[in-house]
Amino acid sequence: MRRLSHYYRVLEEVEAEGKRLISSHRLAEREGITSAQVRKDLSCFGSFGRRGLGYNVAHLREEIRGILGLDRRWRVAIIGAGNVGTALLAYRGFAKQGFDVVAVFDRDPQRVGQRVGELTIHDTREIATHAAEQRVDMGVIATPVSAAQEVADQLVAVGVRAILNFAPRKLFVPPQVALRNVDMSVELESLSFALAQKPPARRRGSG
Amino acid sequence: MRRLSHYYRVLEEVEAEGKRLISSHRLAEREGITSAQVRKDLSCFGSFGRRGLGYNVAHLREEIRGILGLDRRWRVAIIGAGNVGTALLAYRGFAKQGFDVVAVFDRDPQRVGQRVGELTIHDTREIATHAAEQRVDMGVIATPVSAAQEVADQLVAVGVRAILNFAPRKLFVPPQVALRNVDMSVELESLSFALAQKPPARRRGSG
Repeated sequence: MRRLSHYYRVLEEVEAEGKRLISSHRLAEREGITSAQVRKDLSCFGSFGRRGLGYNVAHLREEIRGILGLDRRWRVAIIGAGNVGTALLAYRGFAKQGFDVVAVFDRDPQRVGQRVGELTIHDTREIATHAAEQRVDMGVIATPVSAAQEVADQLVAVGVRAILNFAPRKLFVPPQVALRNVDMSVELESLSFALAQKPPARRRGSG
Repeated sequence: MRRLSHYYRVLEEVEAEGKRLISSHRLAEREGITSAQVRKDLSCFGSFGRRGLGYNVAHLREEIRGILGLDRRWRVAIIGAGNVGTALLAYRGFAKQGFDVVAVFDRDPQRVGQRVGELTIHDTREIATHAAEQRVDMGVIATPVSAAQEVADQLVAVGVRAILNFAPRKLFVPPQVALRNVDMSVELESLSFALAQKPPARRRGSG
């Protein structure tokens, strides 16, 4: 899947450059994968390049687009209208990748009823009714850690099949629900670890 | 490193519960690692539990905290004061993990000079002078894709040793610079892929 994402990105770049054909070598670029691996991946879903010519960029891009589900629209609920949730509401990447935010929830009575863009913030207790009404496909959890698992359970109960979790804790969901985590705190720890290891050899003038 | 992060999180939890000792079994919990691996990891930096008693929670936590560099403060510059950058400025997790935002840059003349919290937005062209003056340890790249590599180069030139990149593209930095990527678009693709694979077997009442 990660490799498909990578191929898709390269194909978009190459298409923007106005090229019509691409080699497996170019598709492998930068990702530490071999062109043999590329050819194997692509043959798995029936796409074959022509020897010496390569793959048709537009065709391959459309094919991968379909496999990645990027040719459809998905309905998203954001739970938690704090800093992270609000930033996500403004995040244009969602729409660009086929995700339309159709509902926002928060449990803070001060926020409930307020409008954000074209949506009204609903009480988290209304997930069961409002998210079902809105036929939500994916839930984005941007709540405090303490509420995250309960919200995940509510989303699962209402039939949501994908969850993007921003709360820095491990969530438990049934196997049929896809779960991805964006954990800033782990990334930050990794960087502070690196900073702590390295001697502060500054290449600065006045510092 | 990821395992250390995990141990640290468990130790924080356990300390909050008021416990003074922890077993290697509990430290291994949830991560698909064995207690033997935990003991090996911890022995690497000279920490040994007592047979049948376990590890001293407070002591082990402090030790790992030091190794992860979380016992110090790091100085951060955020480049890009758009949606992502602004959300990050408000993100409390930075300070909690030892990162103080000391500079913000943007190249939009409408934003340069404006105040965000206690900081004034500087022109991206001033990275060389202002980031050096502010002794920045880490740069957070929240620019559009097209500007990201150039900004990374500027940060590296000014002696920044860690970069957290939110722009959805691969950046090239010298080996002595630690780089972590938070790529929302890859996570979203992974979820739309999962949604596209699964039959929409909704367990909803009215939907």
